[in-house]
Amino acid sequence: MKPPAVVLLSGGLDSATVLAIARDAGYACHALSVDYGQRHAAELVAAGRIAASLGAVGHRVIRLGLGDLGGSALTDPAIAVPEAPTEGIPVTYVPARNTVMLALALAWAEVLGAHDIFIGVNSVDYSGYPDCRPEFIEAFARMANLATRAGVEGVHLAIHTPLQHLSKADIIRRGAALGVDYAQTVSCYQADEAGRACGVCDACRLRREGFAQAGVADPTLYRKDHT
Amino acid sequence: MKPPAVVLLSGGLDSATVLAIARDAGYACHALSVDYGQRHAAELVAAGRIAASLGAVGHRVIRLGLGDLGGSALTDPAIAVPEAPTEGIPVTYVPARNTVMLALALAWAEVLGAHDIFIGVNSVDYSGYPDCRPEFIEAFARMANLATRAGVEGVHLAIHTPLQHLSKADIIRRGAALGVDYAQTVSCYQADEAGRACGVCDACRLRREGFAQAGVADPTLYRKDHT
Repeated sequence: MKPPAVVLLSGGLDSATVLAIARDAGYACHALSVDYGQRHAAELVAAGRIAASLGAVGHRVIRLGLGDLGGSALTDPAIAVPEAPTEGIPVTYVPARNTVMLALALAWAEVLGAHDIFIGVNSVDYSGYPDCRPEFIEAFARMANLATRAGVEGVHLAIHTPLQHLSKADIIRRGAALGVDYAQTVSCYQADEAGRACGVCDACRLRREGFAQAGVADPTLYRKDHT
Repeated sequence: MKPPAVVLLSGGLDSATVLAIARDAGYACHALSVDYGQRHAAELVAAGRIAASLGAVGHRVIRLGLGDLGGSALTDPAIAVPEAPTEGIPVTYVPARNTVMLALALAWAEVLGAHDIFIGVNSVDYSGYPDCRPEFIEAFARMANLATRAGVEGVHLAIHTPLQHLSKADIIRRGAALGVDYAQTVSCYQADEAGRACGVCDACRLRREGFAQAGVADPTLYRKDHT
């Protein structure tokens, strides 16, 4: 019997690759998506498709009214998504996003009796998000082992970050080798309802450069002709 | 100008006392409640009353579909609330509850620019919940300082647990001295819609003993005559 793992799945390129890696490593993958009031639902629709096509044992979408708190271009329509590179922590940063996502993954892991959580954070293209750094993940894992039944019972709970030190091109090569269909994924910060990408936001730029560097044909659906 | 703080407010006796302590310490208090699919809404109604009567600057209720994950008597109607003391971690434990609550408080603190979060955890009557222990809180604070803008910018973010080492009687004495009206609070795990307590669950037992030991008249509204 395969050990269960919780895999955070946003519907984007990175987390789809993480799911493929976790499955390849022999885990029974329970995919978790969080509906935190993103600008578009296309990402969550993509997550459902990806969970099914990559053989996740189950897929849950937790609703969370994070948008009520404001403060991010990704949940607050009053803040514009930048279409050119910016300095420092970008406005697309969702406050405490990975802390909240990992906390919810931890809750589900505890219910499932899973001791493994997978998340697609990355320090190479981390774009100034503090909660993508390895030292944050290590501190979260330490806290998680004190927070739960597992910790009390002496079972070690691990946070896996298989993309931590990979470039976007490396991620794409890895996923392509594992059979990820990237046409199903949505990375754009302002995709339309059909999941078509804007081609100009930070996420689109990084993604397009990744395909070019990986030498893999870019299957992304763009709203206009950006190629 | 008073510094802002986020205060987690469940609507129970402990968190109402924490709000009174935070206000007394000179903070502009932003009360945060989480609607995670508790068995009853009375607790959240109580939180609103308490936030207003104790002078919170604001009060937000974040909706979170934690009940979808199951695993606790407090969110899953299929699991009965025990009416006699039990051994070990009780079924009323909500998986990763304080991790999730603190993560949401951290998100709001970041939006507000607050560097102080208050939570009513307690090690004296902690009833076997791993996420009420001081070592958990310390690990969370360490993680939080790596997770956020504040951490990157070198500002220290503090998690305050003013009830950590107080007995229930001490908490009640402290709150009574600060003017908390405990008739407004709901502690019962299975209160009815009007907020009336069952009188027999763990939370009711601890609360009643606390009032008796503090020598403060118990203002709790019970469903039947349990006194």
